[in-house]
Amino acid sequence: MSRKVYLEDIPLDEAWRRFSDALKSIGRWQPIEGEDVPVPEALGRVTARPIWAHVSSPAYHASAMDGYAVRAVETITANDTHPLQLDLGAQAQVVDTGDPLPGWADAVIMIEHVQPIGNAHIEIRAPIAPWTAVRPLGEDMVATELVLPANHVLRPVDLGALAGSGHATVNVRRKPRVAVIPTGSELITMEQVVRSGVRAGDIIEYNSIVLAAQVEQWGGIATRYPIVIDNFEAIKATVLDAASKHDLVLVNAGSSAGSEDFTARVVQELGTLLVHGVAVRPGHPVILGLVNRGSGIGDQGSATPIVGVPGYPVSAALTGEIFVEPLLARWLGLPGHQKPALRANITRKLLSPMGEDEWVRVTAGKVGDRTVAAPLSRGAGVITSLVRADGIVRIPRFSEGVDTGEEVTIELYTDPAEIDRTIVHIGSHDLTLDLLAQHLAEMTSDSPTPDRSAQRRFVSAHAGSLGGLIALRRGEAHLAGSHLLDPETGEYNFAYIKQYLPDVPVVVVTLLRREQGLIVAPGNPKNIASLQDLARSEVRFVNRQRGAGTRVLLDYRLKELGIAAESVHGYQREEYTHLAVAAAVQSGVADCGLGVRAAARALDLDFVSVEWERYDLVIPQQFYESELLQPLLTLIRGESFRKVVAELEGYDSSEMGNVMRKT
Amino acid sequence: MSRKVYLEDIPLDEAWRRFSDALKSIGRWQPIEGEDVPVPEALGRVTARPIWAHVSSPAYHASAMDGYAVRAVETITANDTHPLQLDLGAQAQVVDTGDPLPGWADAVIMIEHVQPIGNAHIEIRAPIAPWTAVRPLGEDMVATELVLPANHVLRPVDLGALAGSGHATVNVRRKPRVAVIPTGSELITMEQVVRSGVRAGDIIEYNSIVLAAQVEQWGGIATRYPIVIDNFEAIKATVLDAASKHDLVLVNAGSSAGSEDFTARVVQELGTLLVHGVAVRPGHPVILGLVNRGSGIGDQGSATPIVGVPGYPVSAALTGEIFVEPLLARWLGLPGHQKPALRANITRKLLSPMGEDEWVRVTAGKVGDRTVAAPLSRGAGVITSLVRADGIVRIPRFSEGVDTGEEVTIELYTDPAEIDRTIVHIGSHDLTLDLLAQHLAEMTSDSPTPDRSAQRRFVSAHAGSLGGLIALRRGEAHLAGSHLLDPETGEYNFAYIKQYLPDVPVVVVTLLRREQGLIVAPGNPKNIASLQDLARSEVRFVNRQRGAGTRVLLDYRLKELGIAAESVHGYQREEYTHLAVAAAVQSGVADCGLGVRAAARALDLDFVSVEWERYDLVIPQQFYESELLQPLLTLIRGESFRKVVAELEGYDSSEMGNVMRKT
Repeated sequence: MSRKVYLEDIPLDEAWRRFSDALKSIGRWQPIEGEDVPVPEALGRVTARPIWAHVSSPAYHASAMDGYAVRAVETITANDTHPLQLDLGAQAQVVDTGDPLPGWADAVIMIEHVQPIGNAHIEIRAPIAPWTAVRPLGEDMVATELVLPANHVLRPVDLGALAGSGHATVNVRRKPRVAVIPTGSELITMEQVVRSGVRAGDIIEYNSIVLAAQVEQWGGIATRYPIVIDNFEAIKATVLDAASKHDLVLVNAGSSAGSEDFTARVVQELGTLLVHGVAVRPGHPVILGLVNRGSGIGDQGSATPIVGVPGYPVSAALTGEIFVEPLLARWLGLPGHQKPALRANITRKLLSPMGEDEWVRVTAGKVGDRTVAAPLSRGAGVITSLVRADGIVRIPRFSEGVDTGEEVTIELYTDPAEIDRTIVHIGSHDLTLDLLAQHLAEMTSDSPTPDRSAQRRFVSAHAGSLGGLIALRRGEAHLAGSHLLDPETGEYNFAYIKQYLPDVPVVVVTLLRREQGLIVAPGNPKNIASLQDLARSEVRFVNRQRGAGTRVLLDYRLKELGIAAESVHGYQREEYTHLAVAAAVQSGVADCGLGVRAAARALDLDFVSVEWERYDLVIPQQFYESELLQPLLTLIRGESFRKVVAELEGYDSSEMGNVMRKT
Repeated sequence: MSRKVYLEDIPLDEAWRRFSDALKSIGRWQPIEGEDVPVPEALGRVTARPIWAHVSSPAYHASAMDGYAVRAVETITANDTHPLQLDLGAQAQVVDTGDPLPGWADAVIMIEHVQPIGNAHIEIRAPIAPWTAVRPLGEDMVATELVLPANHVLRPVDLGALAGSGHATVNVRRKPRVAVIPTGSELITMEQVVRSGVRAGDIIEYNSIVLAAQVEQWGGIATRYPIVIDNFEAIKATVLDAASKHDLVLVNAGSSAGSEDFTARVVQELGTLLVHGVAVRPGHPVILGLVNRGSGIGDQGSATPIVGVPGYPVSAALTGEIFVEPLLARWLGLPGHQKPALRANITRKLLSPMGEDEWVRVTAGKVGDRTVAAPLSRGAGVITSLVRADGIVRIPRFSEGVDTGEEVTIELYTDPAEIDRTIVHIGSHDLTLDLLAQHLAEMTSDSPTPDRSAQRRFVSAHAGSLGGLIALRRGEAHLAGSHLLDPETGEYNFAYIKQYLPDVPVVVVTLLRREQGLIVAPGNPKNIASLQDLARSEVRFVNRQRGAGTRVLLDYRLKELGIAAESVHGYQREEYTHLAVAAAVQSGVADCGLGVRAAARALDLDFVSVEWERYDLVIPQQFYESELLQPLLTLIRGESFRKVVAELEGYDSSEMGNVMRKT
């Protein structure tokens, strides 16, 4: 059994060069052919050729108003003192808006300026200039004029212009057909998960859903194939079938070089393997190739491009962006999606491997005058890092990374306007922050005119209480959740604020009180009754990271109890959130960890209460008074949110919104 | 017959207040209810409630690499000089990426760092830290964590996170159902046009296509009803049917107060007329109301909102933006589309009526350091003004307008990045400029990496040759097409450039030579043989506007011939383009006009040649050398575009691209 890894390390531009050269050689580097579709169904489609007007609009001189068509020259003498009468029929004719002008007329007097005299005459009191209130033939479009260029994405008004210039159908680029083939014996479907849950070793197959949705979003049509097990012949047969019916084949996973990675060999056997491994991260094990089409189908002797997409969800989605989107755009005749760029200061030092372009996911917010970019998890398996990302910071090959505070360019997924209405929280993690985010997203202003100025996006990075205070000092966040117990005074937060934010005036607003305790397995099999049990040698503990309020609390209480950190088994293992601690207990890696009751409850674990603590929001004065934060302050001082939190076990929201101190 | 107009003049915010109060009273000012849809079909839909993770991801400690699962503590002594052997089975176990870790293991050594020793052992040369190459349970999502908030538009990666956290379906807002009812006895369908053409008085019905496409684009489902004739009972029956099956009814046209305008009366009879006439322009005759639903259908006793949409295409489309989009957004729980704002200098003085908010369509481009906004046609019937618009400049009530050069805010339809790659032409009109625009839109760079940096948008305003030179002086355009004959020298353009652009170094590049002549009706019924015939009293002429090169040419030749302007019948009637002149001849309003052969040919008219003239592009040096203009210069110096133009009758492209002069 050979399990060695042989992957290339081809720079991105070189990979594209090989791919595009191969596509040129088979005539697939051109925009795709057009097809005629009815105009009402053409929204969002791309014109395949320029569209010229078939008819003029209007196709005749048309009245622009309800009124009377007249000869302007016959109105010259009319004025207030000498009103003029015109004969209905010979000199004046009723016209409604859009009616054609009689051949003899050259102007329209609007109805408000006319006095009917009996049934045969009208009276006017002012002359009218020729061509007044007339829409001349071709005012909008003249037959043969260019209505729309080729390579244009059709919007609603474009459809109007097409129909108005005499087109019932429009030639648009055929939607590229893309096959998405998930492979892997370990994969299970969402439906299976809903029926039977997830067992160890199961991987929920959703990359094909993401890739298919990307294809759809970028103007293609995706076919999702059923999951193919890790079997060379099965994969080969499926790829061959897909290649005969599609413009592009995506094979998901099996693109690396492990024992069960068949994609490269399949491509080699069915056509040409152009690239196996690109110097990008995440997404390294990408395959680019051509599959020769079976005889008798379609364009004989030609081939279908294939992309082997890596298996990690983030790698898969980014491979879509890096290789599939530009190819679909080219086929559709479009310039390709350019993400808006935004300059920002990075909040954390990032080391990046030389030799690879790295795509780092970040959230962004505007804090005071600066835009800050906070890096998210860099794990290729963390799809939520893409869900939460406001954009991507690319760290190029031959760079070792970026330093804290360094200016970087974010390629934005998010509308820049949304960045401006983002409240950035860095600090301690509490489960109610998710609820807070949710309630803020649902807030709307009460203005009758549509105006959602009250809506806020709440972005939260979990850096621990101390990390939050440091972020405030650096101007990287609007507020910090904090529950730092001062051993000297037994008070929360104030001493730390004084120490870490001596020069920043802040307002300390209580969010809630919450119950801290030991999260233990259901039934508490190790009979853990208090923090004193952490000293027992058979009890495996899971800790929070340094700087977390919960860690400060633990260290304080351990000291009180005279228990040395070294004697706590598992003290070194750090997790960053309450839920991660609970998850460690649930998985059996640890017997207990210190955290909030809500985390234990969330994962159906048991809980040994230790104490109630206060959790505050620390808000620099300048942001406390800003318009940005008012909806949040309104929310935590209103009844509805307080009630929601009060109903959660382990929470006390009676002090919510109280100002504890201003510095 | 009462044909008087009684329309209200309600300010926009007051109209919205009445509408929203009425919607609140019937419980329709809330987001719409949710429905469960399969995750793979949920792209672009809006979450109706927050989504919490059902399962953790990964749901177990998973290997992050292909390699061997080990106990970290057993690897401590390994180093290069003292390699360590581990027993396969008890101390090390083969794992592939994604495999669950055995219960006893806490780290994975990647395969590249392991030397297999026979079938029973592996050898390692370095210790490994606990949890290396392990994706801990819940690394991505922990069960019960918030995956997505409510009111979130689902993107491809969101679908992945939903499926990955154990959801096979997702609760999203039902798509609002909107009925679109076109009314009007004068309306014909596109299909009728294609079959039988347009007769005088026919209006092609396409507002319903535009409105339906808008509804679709904004997240609703539209039903387009067949055209209803102007008959009170017919419209009433259709509205009642539509109201019983839809969340919103749009009735197009008949919303004013003319003799055939029934919408307001229909709404009055079927429910409540809230607003009839809003102080916006275009779009004044808007109706807002409620229609009581017939009994037995749906929510008994409640009502369906109705919008009477004005008939002019621009008014109709803007009514969609102003009233329909915000309502759909509210129902979907979305903040409503905020167009990006861009500050720009307006290129032309705009007078605007006091008392109405006016929506002015503009094109935009970046000329040097300034962004310029050029107003388009303000006619409510000119749909191409919306097609060509890069955005809207709102002139508020109580303002009389804006002055030339004044700074305004554009609410952009166009991506700001596209504005940056826009070449702005102001000047003389030539039909080949459409072709030039077309070719520039199709240009792509030859780089293998997807990169459409060569693509340019060409925006052209027809202001005549002199208007173009003045625009260059004001810094409003990148180049100006010009064919100004100097009577003194018989040369083109140079004298005018010297006079109008004394301080702006420019490069004069020839685009083409073209044939000017008299455009006459087919068969030339008035036997027009030369410009001398313009003096004949029975010949009606149509002129070009002052400042147009063609006008300069005419005046010069008339002077040579000794023909006084006053003796030319129709000399005062000015059109702005060659095609408009041809259209005037086609419609029979004029017997002839001076213009290029291509315009006569476009409308199947006859042509009496007068002379060949040179048409140059005048380009300020700074833009001539800019990256922006290089693709255009490349294009006109290449063979393909030259050939396309050479094949057009009346054009000579042999000098295309030649530099005639630099100043």
